[in-house]
Amino acid sequence: MAKEITPRSEDYSQWYLDIVHKARMADNSPVRGCMVIKPHGFAIWEKMRDALDAMFKETGHVNAYFPLFIPKSFLSKEAAHIEGFAKECAVVTHYRLKNDPNGGGVIVDPEAKLEEELIVRPTSETIIWNTYRDWIQSYRDLPILINQWANVVRWEMRTRPFLRTTEFLWQEGHTAHASAEEAIVETRQMLDVYAQFAEEFMAMPVIKGVKTANERFAGAVDTYCIEALMQDGKALQAGTSHFLGQNFAKAFDVMFLNKENQQEHVWATSWGASTRLVGGLIMTHSDDDGLVLPPKLAPIQVVIVPIPKPAAELTEVATKIAAELRAKGISVKIDNDEQNRPGFKFAEYEMIGVPVRLGLGARDLANNQVEVARRDTKEKANVSLDGIAEHVANLLDDMQRNLFERAKAYRDSHITPVDTWEEFENVLETKGGFVSAHWDGTSETELAIKERSKATIRCIPIDNPLEDGACILTGNPSTQRVLFARAY
Amino acid sequence: MAKEITPRSEDYSQWYLDIVHKARMADNSPVRGCMVIKPHGFAIWEKMRDALDAMFKETGHVNAYFPLFIPKSFLSKEAAHIEGFAKECAVVTHYRLKNDPNGGGVIVDPEAKLEEELIVRPTSETIIWNTYRDWIQSYRDLPILINQWANVVRWEMRTRPFLRTTEFLWQEGHTAHASAEEAIVETRQMLDVYAQFAEEFMAMPVIKGVKTANERFAGAVDTYCIEALMQDGKALQAGTSHFLGQNFAKAFDVMFLNKENQQEHVWATSWGASTRLVGGLIMTHSDDDGLVLPPKLAPIQVVIVPIPKPAAELTEVATKIAAELRAKGISVKIDNDEQNRPGFKFAEYEMIGVPVRLGLGARDLANNQVEVARRDTKEKANVSLDGIAEHVANLLDDMQRNLFERAKAYRDSHITPVDTWEEFENVLETKGGFVSAHWDGTSETELAIKERSKATIRCIPIDNPLEDGACILTGNPSTQRVLFARAY
Repeated sequence: MAKEITPRSEDYSQWYLDIVHKARMADNSPVRGCMVIKPHGFAIWEKMRDALDAMFKETGHVNAYFPLFIPKSFLSKEAAHIEGFAKECAVVTHYRLKNDPNGGGVIVDPEAKLEEELIVRPTSETIIWNTYRDWIQSYRDLPILINQWANVVRWEMRTRPFLRTTEFLWQEGHTAHASAEEAIVETRQMLDVYAQFAEEFMAMPVIKGVKTANERFAGAVDTYCIEALMQDGKALQAGTSHFLGQNFAKAFDVMFLNKENQQEHVWATSWGASTRLVGGLIMTHSDDDGLVLPPKLAPIQVVIVPIPKPAAELTEVATKIAAELRAKGISVKIDNDEQNRPGFKFAEYEMIGVPVRLGLGARDLANNQVEVARRDTKEKANVSLDGIAEHVANLLDDMQRNLFERAKAYRDSHITPVDTWEEFENVLETKGGFVSAHWDGTSETELAIKERSKATIRCIPIDNPLEDGACILTGNPSTQRVLFARAY
Repeated sequence: MAKEITPRSEDYSQWYLDIVHKARMADNSPVRGCMVIKPHGFAIWEKMRDALDAMFKETGHVNAYFPLFIPKSFLSKEAAHIEGFAKECAVVTHYRLKNDPNGGGVIVDPEAKLEEELIVRPTSETIIWNTYRDWIQSYRDLPILINQWANVVRWEMRTRPFLRTTEFLWQEGHTAHASAEEAIVETRQMLDVYAQFAEEFMAMPVIKGVKTANERFAGAVDTYCIEALMQDGKALQAGTSHFLGQNFAKAFDVMFLNKENQQEHVWATSWGASTRLVGGLIMTHSDDDGLVLPPKLAPIQVVIVPIPKPAAELTEVATKIAAELRAKGISVKIDNDEQNRPGFKFAEYEMIGVPVRLGLGARDLANNQVEVARRDTKEKANVSLDGIAEHVANLLDDMQRNLFERAKAYRDSHITPVDTWEEFENVLETKGGFVSAHWDGTSETELAIKERSKATIRCIPIDNPLEDGACILTGNPSTQRVLFARAY
C-alpha cells in the first residue's frame, strides 16, 4: 500500500495528492473544484474545529449563523471589497426548475428569475455588517464578539484538495468595537490564538506578521497573518486577522452613540481559518509512507494489533490496555479484523497516521511486554505491560513535542537572509523557504519581484527589527527586511 | 420587557414571533426567507447538535462533508426525487460579476455562464450516491454509515423563523447496506435515536410512526417520522428517517458484489433533523413571560443575581456557589451588571429561559440562605446555602422531568378518537391536537380530507393496533385508525 505513494523527492505535488487520497482524507467531486471530505479527513477537521472553538469561547466569543446568500448590491457597498471578490463568486439567478416542455428533461424555469441576484457568500462581512446596523445603537451594545462556522464559495481557477477549493469550510469571526484601539487589540489577540493553535495543536511553527498593501484582505486597513513553511520550501498562509477600521461601518452606515454622546462609526475586525489548515498539517509532518499526525489532532491515537491474528487471550489483554489508555483520555482502536495480516495492517495505520501502534503477540504476552511503534520516527521498542498506559501517554506528549521541534528546526534553517538579487533568486531556486531581504516599501517593486521570481512578501514579521539597507531589486533605501517566499 | 410579548391566548403566531425576537433567538435577514440565528438561539442549537452527534457516533456513524452544489442533471436521475424538489431550489447559473460598462454598478458577467447549472443542495442523496458508486465494490465495503452537518436551501413560499426557512441547518445521515433488512433496521434505529433525543433532551414527547404515500420523502420507499404536539394543538414533524430501498442505487448505478458473488444494487437509508427542532422546543414549553428551556439544552442553567446590586460580600458567596455548581457540570452566570435593577434582570432571565435563578441579598446571607426560583413553575423557595449545589442539581433534574411530564400530559389529553366526520371537524376546530380516526387507505380520500379540513395524516403509529372500522369521510372499510392533525 505505502508503495503506491509517489516519493516527495520525485514529485512533491503528486505526493501530496497521493496522501490525500490514500490516507482517505478527501475525494474529488463531480462539481468543479469542490471536494468530498471523507470521514478520516473530516474527523481531523472536527478536532481542529473543536480546539479552535474552545479557544474562541475562552476569549469571550460566541457563535451565531448568518445567511449563505448575499444580495448582489451588498457586495458592492465597500469599494475595495467588491474589487477583491467580484471575480470569484457563484451567482444564484433563479429559484425553480421545471420540466422542459420540449422533453429535454429538467430546465431552469425562466419565470422564476430573481429580481436581485444572490451571491453565495465568499466571506460574510457585508451581510453581517448590514445586520449589525440593527444591533448597535450605543457603546453599551459593544463589543460584539461573534464567530461563525460556515461554508464559503470562491470560484477559484486552480484548485487542490484542502489547499484551495471552490467551496471550503471555515470559521469567520466578526467583531464590533467602540474604538480603534480596542479593535486592534482584538485583531492581535486572534492572531495570537491562531499562532497558539498552530503551534500547540498542529505542531506547526508559524511566523506572525502583517501583510503588505498588495496582499491585504479586500476592505481591511491591516491584515495580520500566520505563515508556515511546508516541507518543499513553499510558504502557506494559515490564518488571517484583519483590522477593518471603520470601512464596513461606513459602507453599511453602522453608527453608535459613544460615551461623549456623539455619533461615531463602529470599529471592526474579522478573522478566519479554514480547511486549508488540513493541507498545511499534511505538508508539515507527513512522509513517504503516509500521513503523520500530531497526537492532539489524531482521531485514533493508539491502535492495538494482535499478532499474528486476534485470539481470545490477546483480545483480553488488548481490552485491558485499551481501558487503561481510555481512562487517560487517549483514543484507542483494537484491530480485531481477521482478514488481513499484521504487515498489511501496519502499513495501513502508517498510511492514515495513527501515532502509536501496539503489536501484541503470544510471545510478548509471555514476556509481559508489548511492541510499541511510534509513527513519527518509526522507532520500535519492547515495553513492559506494567505501566504501559503511562508510557504511551508520555510517548504521545513526546511525539507532539518532537513533531513541533522537527518542523521548527526545518523552518528555522530555511529563513535565509540575502542582500543581492542574485542571492535572492539563487536561494529561491535551490533552497527555498523564507528569504529575508530588504525591500523599498513600494507596491511596484513588490509586484516586479513577484513577476520575476514568483515570490511574494509573506509578511513583515511582528516586532521586526529596524535595520538600514538597500532594496534587493531597486537598491533604494529600506528600513527593514521582510520575508519573501513562493507560496501555496 | 415581558409585557411586550403577545399572550398565547390572544395570538399564538405572534406570541411565537415575539419569543423568537425578544428571547434573542433569531432575526429576520434581508435575504428572503433566510434568518440570522443569534448567539442565544445558536447556543441552543449547538447543544442539540452536540447531543445528537454523540448519539450518532455511539450508533457507529461517522461525519463527512459533501459539496454544497449539485449538478442539475443529478437531481433528475431519480424520478420521484426531482418531482419533489424541482419546485423549490436555488439555481447557480454564473460564476463571476463585473463592473457594468454602462456605469450601473456591478452586474453578472454574461460571459461567465456555467455549462450546466448547479443547484444549491435541498438535500444530498443525489451527490452522495453519485460518490458512493466509487466507494462500493463488494459487501466488504458495506455498510457505509455517514452523517453530515450542513446547510440546505429550499425555496419556500411561506417562511417562519426556525419552523420553515429558505436556508436551514440540519444533519443528514446517508447509509448504504448489503440487504433490505439491514437498511430497515438502520432506518428504525435512527427513528429511535430521534425519539430518544426529543424526549430525553428536548423534554418533548413524540409519537413514532410511518408516513402515508402522500407524505413520503421524494424517492423513499418508506418514511418514518416522529410527531410532536405544540401548545396550540398543531402537530410538528420533528425528524424523519427514510428507507430508500434501491431507488438511489439504481438511479446512480451503485452495485456491489454480494456474498453469493452476484452483482446487486445497494440498499439505502437517509435521515434528518434540522433547526426546525428549535421552533418545536419553543412551542412545547414556553409561556407568556418568555422562553422555557429544559435544563439539558439551556446554554446557561443557573444565574446568580446579587440583590439589590453587586457587593463584595455577595460576590464572594456567589463565586463560591458558582464553583460548586460548575464542579457538578452545571453552567452558571453571575450577573454583576450594575446598571439594571433586580426586577429588570429577573424579567430578562425569564425571557431567555434560564432554568434556575438564585437571588442573593444581604439578609439571605445573614440567614445562610438563598432564594431559588425555577423558571418552569415560577415557584420560589428559600434554601439553605449548605448543600445548595446538590439542591440545584436535583432541581434541574426535576425540572427536566417535570417539563416532559407536563408536555406529555397535554399531548396525551389531545389524542382524540372520533368516529364521524362531524366529530372530526368539531375536534379540529375546538380542541385541536391529534385526531385518531379510521381512513380507507387511499390517497384520494387523504387529499379530500386535507382539502376540507386542512388536516393531514401525521402518521400511522408504529405498532398501531388493527381494528375494523369505517372511514370517517367515505365510510369505506378501514383496518386501523391513523393520526390526523393540522400541522406546521
